[in-house]
Amino acid sequence: MANPSESTAPTTTGIVYLVGAGPGAVDLITVRGAKLLAQADIVLHDALVTPEMLALCPQAIKISVGKRSGQRSAAQEHINQQLIEAAQQHAIVVRLKGGDPMLFGRADEEMTALENAGIRFEIVPGITTAMAAAASVKLPLTKRGVARSVALFTSSTAPGESAETRIPDCDSLVQYMGGKEAILTAQRMLAKGFPATHPIVIVESCSRPEEKHLHLTLADLAHGLTPSAGPVLVMMGEAFRKRSS
Amino acid sequence: MANPSESTAPTTTGIVYLVGAGPGAVDLITVRGAKLLAQADIVLHDALVTPEMLALCPQAIKISVGKRSGQRSAAQEHINQQLIEAAQQHAIVVRLKGGDPMLFGRADEEMTALENAGIRFEIVPGITTAMAAAASVKLPLTKRGVARSVALFTSSTAPGESAETRIPDCDSLVQYMGGKEAILTAQRMLAKGFPATHPIVIVESCSRPEEKHLHLTLADLAHGLTPSAGPVLVMMGEAFRKRSS
Repeated sequence: MANPSESTAPTTTGIVYLVGAGPGAVDLITVRGAKLLAQADIVLHDALVTPEMLALCPQAIKISVGKRSGQRSAAQEHINQQLIEAAQQHAIVVRLKGGDPMLFGRADEEMTALENAGIRFEIVPGITTAMAAAASVKLPLTKRGVARSVALFTSSTAPGESAETRIPDCDSLVQYMGGKEAILTAQRMLAKGFPATHPIVIVESCSRPEEKHLHLTLADLAHGLTPSAGPVLVMMGEAFRKRSS
Repeated sequence: MANPSESTAPTTTGIVYLVGAGPGAVDLITVRGAKLLAQADIVLHDALVTPEMLALCPQAIKISVGKRSGQRSAAQEHINQQLIEAAQQHAIVVRLKGGDPMLFGRADEEMTALENAGIRFEIVPGITTAMAAAASVKLPLTKRGVARSVALFTSSTAPGESAETRIPDCDSLVQYMGGKEAILTAQRMLAKGFPATHPIVIVESCSRPEEKHLHLTLADLAHGLTPSAGPVLVMMGEAFRKRSS
């Protein structure tokens, strides 16, 4: 790719679409997102996006820009630069992000970089894992007379951030990137007076063939019973109690 | 439709898909949802679903089951009964709901009714308005160092429910069906010590041609400045401060 510090001006400047890929299943992307993938000249995608999803853009140059924990800021700056360079060389750039770009997606940093570089961009929302997990386990996030607020939160921290220790004051709680952090959340909830039998559902690899669910109680979770040490979605609240029918 | 109390047993029992239509734009439904619409024998849809969306299922019987405020419980029971009867007469039934079925969608009541009637069902998630509105205004729901929790809530009440007066303890707040209730929320937030300049974004008719945005402050909202008396989405928090670039 061209180095933007070179004196040769870019011949074209494209538009960047930040597209939510959804939770994983190829058909849980939006119709708009799928159409943009089919039109893209270049797709910069998270590491977790599946080969099936990338098969929606056979014509496009595909670049994995996925980052793992550690050195995240440096990695994000590199992604921002890759996006700008892509837009200087191609008409339609898709930045394909897992879930929804605006929720736990670092979209703000990419939007700011694009704006500062004078590059047009649009956002295409995606299904976030909370909704897909509720659909998979067939339990609602809100329920009449039981739950009419939902908190989507994470305890995962970026460098320089302190750990989140608040328990959001909402009826339903959905902790992203749960794993070990959810055990701490459960211990704090018990200490705060939530009942030991408070219903918990853990969803791993949501909407993928290897998806797993586990129904348990707050006490179970506080004592460390999780299906995985890896990133999972943890749903907590009365709305997640299994129906008796 | 057949009356299920008649002694003649149904000849077939279909499957019901509760499908999220998303915020309104026809291409913000998922690919899975669009495919199911194209295969459906019958579609029972909310009143707010657009003609463009219903054009995705030209082959299907289409029944509007939308309900307005007042007598909501009776209306919901009637919808449940219509779903059961549809599944007794058709192979593929789609229940098309605005937004996501599991969030403020009364899905629990429909799932329970279907389970009690022994009818198979699946849920297909949809883009909820919070994500679509964030995409439209190009402001994130979470932001590194600023916001890592989001509350999705409503103050709208069902018969027999008391009004919600809690301010969820999350960094970003998104109030569904806001309108007049959001003014009360803003007054409570001011009383709780939130700054008068706390950023607010109101989105009306999200993702539709008539979509409108308004950027204002908590003090503006507390004093009754809203673009509409109708249902709007109200986003409150530092993550919704306009970028200066």
